[in-house]
Amino acid sequence: MERVDNLAHERETAQFDVEAMKIVWAGSKHELDVSDRMARLVASDPVFHKDNRTMLARKELFKTTLKKAAHAWKRINELHLTEEEASKMRFFIDEPAYTDLHWGMFVPAIKGQGTEEQQQKWLPLAYKMQIIGCYAQTELGHGSNVQGLETTATFDPNTDEFIIHSPTLTSSKWWPGGLGKVSTHAVVYARLITEGKDYGIHGFIVQLRSLDDHSPLPGITVGDIGNKFGSGAYNTMDNGVLQFDHVRIPRDQLLMRLSQVTREGKYVQSDVPRQLLYSTMVYVRQTIVADASRALSRAACIATRYSAVRRQFGSQDGGPESAVINYKTQQNRLFPLIASAYAFRFVGEWLKSLYTDVTQRLQANDFSTLAEAHACTAGLKSLTTSFTADGIEECRKLCGGHGYLSSSGLPELFAVYIPACTYEGDNIVLLLQVARFLMKTVSQLTTGKKPVGTTAYMGNIEHLMQCRCTVNTADDWLNPSAIQEAFEARAVRMAVNCAQNVSKAPSQEEGFLNLSADLVEAAIAHCQLIVVTKFIEKVQQDIMGNGVKEQLQILCNIYALNLLHKHLGDFLVTGSITPKQGALVSEQLRSLYSKLRPNVVTLVDAFNYTDHYLGSVLGRYDGNVYPALYEQAWKDPLNESAVPEGYAEYIRPVLKQQLRLARL
Amino acid sequence: MERVDNLAHERETAQFDVEAMKIVWAGSKHELDVSDRMARLVASDPVFHKDNRTMLARKELFKTTLKKAAHAWKRINELHLTEEEASKMRFFIDEPAYTDLHWGMFVPAIKGQGTEEQQQKWLPLAYKMQIIGCYAQTELGHGSNVQGLETTATFDPNTDEFIIHSPTLTSSKWWPGGLGKVSTHAVVYARLITEGKDYGIHGFIVQLRSLDDHSPLPGITVGDIGNKFGSGAYNTMDNGVLQFDHVRIPRDQLLMRLSQVTREGKYVQSDVPRQLLYSTMVYVRQTIVADASRALSRAACIATRYSAVRRQFGSQDGGPESAVINYKTQQNRLFPLIASAYAFRFVGEWLKSLYTDVTQRLQANDFSTLAEAHACTAGLKSLTTSFTADGIEECRKLCGGHGYLSSSGLPELFAVYIPACTYEGDNIVLLLQVARFLMKTVSQLTTGKKPVGTTAYMGNIEHLMQCRCTVNTADDWLNPSAIQEAFEARAVRMAVNCAQNVSKAPSQEEGFLNLSADLVEAAIAHCQLIVVTKFIEKVQQDIMGNGVKEQLQILCNIYALNLLHKHLGDFLVTGSITPKQGALVSEQLRSLYSKLRPNVVTLVDAFNYTDHYLGSVLGRYDGNVYPALYEQAWKDPLNESAVPEGYAEYIRPVLKQQLRLARL
Ligand SMILES: Cc1cc2nc3c(=O)[nH]c(=O)nc-3n(C[C@H](O)[C@H](O)[C@H](O)COP(=O)(O)OP(=O)(O)OC[C@H]3O[C@@H](n4cnc5c(N)ncnc54)[C@H](O)[C@@H]3O)c2cc1C
Ligand SMILES: Cc1cc2nc3c(=O)[nH]c(=O)nc-3n(C[C@H](O)[C@H](O)[C@H](O)COP(=O)(O)OP(=O)(O)OC[C@H]3O[C@@H](n4cnc5c(N)ncnc54)[C@H](O)[C@@H]3O)c2cc1C
Ligand SMILES: [Ca+2]
Repeated sequence: MERVDNLAHERETAQFDVEAMKIVWAGSKHELDVSDRMARLVASDPVFHKDNRTMLARKELFKTTLKKAAHAWKRINELHLTEEEASKMRFFIDEPAYTDLHWGMFVPAIKGQGTEEQQQKWLPLAYKMQIIGCYAQTELGHGSNVQGLETTATFDPNTDEFIIHSPTLTSSKWWPGGLGKVSTHAVVYARLITEGKDYGIHGFIVQLRSLDDHSPLPGITVGDIGNKFGSGAYNTMDNGVLQFDHVRIPRDQLLMRLSQVTREGKYVQSDVPRQLLYSTMVYVRQTIVADASRALSRAACIATRYSAVRRQFGSQDGGPESAVINYKTQQNRLFPLIASAYAFRFVGEWLKSLYTDVTQRLQANDFSTLAEAHACTAGLKSLTTSFTADGIEECRKLCGGHGYLSSSGLPELFAVYIPACTYEGDNIVLLLQVARFLMKTVSQLTTGKKPVGTTAYMGNIEHLMQCRCTVNTADDWLNPSAIQEAFEARAVRMAVNCAQNVSKAPSQEEGFLNLSADLVEAAIAHCQLIVVTKFIEKVQQDIMGNGVKEQLQILCNIYALNLLHKHLGDFLVTGSITPKQGALVSEQLRSLYSKLRPNVVTLVDAFNYTDHYLGSVLGRYDGNVYPALYEQAWKDPLNESAVPEGYAEYIRPVLKQQLRLARL
Repeated sequence: MERVDNLAHERETAQFDVEAMKIVWAGSKHELDVSDRMARLVASDPVFHKDNRTMLARKELFKTTLKKAAHAWKRINELHLTEEEASKMRFFIDEPAYTDLHWGMFVPAIKGQGTEEQQQKWLPLAYKMQIIGCYAQTELGHGSNVQGLETTATFDPNTDEFIIHSPTLTSSKWWPGGLGKVSTHAVVYARLITEGKDYGIHGFIVQLRSLDDHSPLPGITVGDIGNKFGSGAYNTMDNGVLQFDHVRIPRDQLLMRLSQVTREGKYVQSDVPRQLLYSTMVYVRQTIVADASRALSRAACIATRYSAVRRQFGSQDGGPESAVINYKTQQNRLFPLIASAYAFRFVGEWLKSLYTDVTQRLQANDFSTLAEAHACTAGLKSLTTSFTADGIEECRKLCGGHGYLSSSGLPELFAVYIPACTYEGDNIVLLLQVARFLMKTVSQLTTGKKPVGTTAYMGNIEHLMQCRCTVNTADDWLNPSAIQEAFEARAVRMAVNCAQNVSKAPSQEEGFLNLSADLVEAAIAHCQLIVVTKFIEKVQQDIMGNGVKEQLQILCNIYALNLLHKHLGDFLVTGSITPKQGALVSEQLRSLYSKLRPNVVTLVDAFNYTDHYLGSVLGRYDGNVYPALYEQAWKDPLNESAVPEGYAEYIRPVLKQQLRLARL
């Protein structure tokens, strides 16, 4: 294919230093270097090619995943990669695999819930991958409600063992990634029963398969749960089903950091505070927010580049048509997605520091910020993943018909991303948790208890309940404090409003259930405020590089004002702004889009994604999309012959009116 | 599997006659009968089974589609099915196939654009499927902008032929369904050039493949454009690429109803009015709106039944947990989708009558309503398909984790549905057309020209610009005229507002381009008003059956008030309602959801979908989902062996630390 840069003219108009922006996006020069090296390493290795992924049948697809995972592990060892490098490498391989669960759930579960002794026994095996593990919590009948799980682990004092059992069909473990075909071990969540009493859900290390020949151990039924959304996507993962028929494991495979069962069968709580478990949750959700910014930026990168290449209408005097990125409707749909990718990146960065903070406090037995941190991470997980899922699909639509081709990369990105809205907490269930926390915070305001962290603004309730937005001109909306105050007023007023309505019900619980749709909206308002605040704070920091800060300022304003416009009803109904001020938002947005326009292609270049990682003919760095689309098409297996298989049996008899005779 | 009805208790609580509602949904007793017979015919025929569709690799998948299409054609002939029956049959087979384009685009194009003589020559061949045709308009470089197509058809007076040619890569035809592997003929759109002059885009009948052995004719390069979204979905269709290298066709294969080229090469317009072409467009878009209600109702049916089966949380005193359909957040997401399915059904029904009306007027040379009908169908196509695409994905999320399995039916329904947002006019491009029409209508108001049809309300502009909504209590929102007026006021005010802002720009065109994001919102407001109005009108008709009208009334209110809540910003910013009235909307919605609750399962039963058509283990009529999920899982090819292919090469060496030696 010709070597050209069809986007050179777009790159020339950028008003900032793209290399400096790359560092801001990556987090640091070091992180950029690691990312860059790992991305290139993966891209240059033929084993990691993924062009034909969507064309493979499930078995073949799965086998290539096993191959990639083994090859990655080999390279990680050969090159003595650090943990940071190895995890980046897995990221750029860009394919769900059992290793995600092994490293991301199995190992952390043992670290978090195992005793020192258990960690010493199991972790070295896991680190060397002498055992491969997964995380088996969800069952056919229960996901969100973990307390409702039905698998039992009954202690048998005669043999000093737990008997793991699936008493019903719905108690079958269902969904755990890596379980279906690969894992030798699992952390299994089951109801601990001893001395006839049910002590609720606990984690157990259970071996599932023989280490000799990989066959399921006696009493264990295990398999894959079948095809999922998309053609490649999550089908590279062996999400599994698992049933136990009275499987016995030694007593010391109960994860015992928080509670133990004695040789005699006594259930004993340890003196380790249960709250310690929360830090893992904060950690995992922080990674999900980081993933959201990656997925959204990736989709936005594809849609932006293609929108700058794609020309449609608007030719004047026989000249070239207009690139569709020049249409205001396209900008109005696309630019907020770019801004949101940056917003999520920065709130994710901040969440990482929150995790450190929470961990340190926990170690010092300070639980004062825990509930707030928990609510905040739950809310941000929900907000960013829901928005990203919709944003990816919007990017696909922004690419017109060609976005529907697998070779655009967007269908598979959508299919592989959307489970993030469901796992680690269904997004609505999470928002309801945030709402509960907000209601509690509001109710405590009168008792003088100071709200902390991301709810601190609520301490300012008296001002926020009656303040009036002072915006007079469209440019006044460029003032971060005006934005901030409007978002704070809206959030606090929605929360207070809900609290008042809830309190009218016969009981608090009844009120909460009845008003839960409104409560979810209040929770969203609160979470959007957090993202807006963190973006504003980021832009107020020192930022290196020519023009970088100016671009981030524009993105920050686009992010906030687009939200304001989308949720105008909230702002107006709570009187946080006036209709006239609302109209000024649209005006300012138009002007911000024009300012951003010359920079957009370079702003997505700053994500520093390789063509391999993007996996999209439409998102190519060089914008040379048409020859690439054309080339890719001919690789489809249907094109192996000009006349398709089935012609003789199913097409010719139709054309020749010989169907009556044919046996189909 | 056990024979049970897990949803019997839900069906007992219904407050209306489901059989009567089935007739309302189907349109008439006759249509219900035809549907019912065809659905059962398809469901009972093993050739039409579709359980394993998502597990097949592309070639195999495509071959089964060929088989189904041939078998359908055989059955249609054997059973002497009417056109109505045949089309229903194809609908219930539920699989995109070349026949869709043959019957849906190729035949209508010849009917609409061919002369009597051409119709007599080509239609009998097409009706018997002695030739199979497709509709080849879109090119690699141009979709929305049809005037930008690059394929040329140059008349050669020496041989009395057109020379069809693809002068550039981007002029390759790209996307036509049925083109890639099956069609023997196509209606090809190309620039007609004669006597050195380019007369713009015209349709030509071009033979592509030999009728003897199906090989592409000389000068023709044709193939499939490759994998698309989803694993089954549109991959059963051979969307194709096509290039011409100076392919010659007889002059009389120009479709000549509107214009001809004489033997000498003179371009001549016929006296048939060009506007006649519009009636086809109205027809096609009306079918798309009908399809939207079918797709949305199907997704809503699955999510509703599963939500009534799925229990999570809320167990009291050890009793069963609550069905998730009882949660207000679930209701708030799901019930408006059921209401929208009904709304789209009725607006689709009305569009059918609009089509008849337009056709009759055209035949009488009355073009007065054409522009309005055109804008109306464009807008409704855009509105209903965008909403349906999002609605299907929302239904999937409403099913939690299990919605992500292909066996839920929802991933494939989404993947197969979403192109409706792009084909037959990109939804944003269509809304911009509506906006142009609205701006014109507004500008003509002062000239005294009476707006017609769905814009008639604009004639009432003086009242609508200053009226105040009189709603005082939540129950006042049950009044259809209050709803209607609020939607009219909002629509008119947004349109007028846009018109004023547009007029401030240096030129009308510049203003339009600049404000196009706002204009799209105004267009949406107008289109939502149409749907609301048609639903209100429907409910005001005589409707048979116990309790049927009452349920439709509730659905109508839910449809309108949910929109009002979602777009509250519009209503407030235009002063169409007050913040207090906005808050009453939420209150009324809660009460409407409670009223609907006992009826929802039966309301989706009224769609009369067979389990075969639904194709969803979660949407089963009997609600017996868990055994079905479990059974389906084991059918995955990955479960053919307990130890997966690739174990020896890629898993064992990892576990046994033998990777260094392995050659991957
Ligand atoms: C790709 C993928 C990978 C996964 N990997 C793993 C894994 O490795 N290990 C593992 O253990 N699990 C895994 N899971 C399971 C996942 O964690 C669960 O699917 C998730 O927790 C959601 O639970 P659910 O499916 O039971 O949803 P449900 O709770 O059944 O949700 C159904 C609907 O009910 C609503 N709802 C539920 N409760 C309430 C309530 N109280 N109030 C209001 N509405 C409510 C939800 O909002 C949703 O709309 C995975 C899932 C997927 C899709
Ligand atoms: C499954 C499928 C089946 C199809 N079947 C057929 C078929 O049988 N025959 C056939 O001929 N074609 C077919 N098509 C092609 C289809 O008709 C085109 O894809 C469609 O018309 C959209 O055009 P496009 O792809 O050029 O989008 P583009 O116009 O390139 O759209 C890209 C983006 O630009 C925006 N945009 C474009 N113009 C403007 C404007 N003036 N103002 C503002 N924004 C603008 C759009 O909103 C969109 O966001 C099919 C497509 C699909 C996906
Ligand atoms: Ca496949």
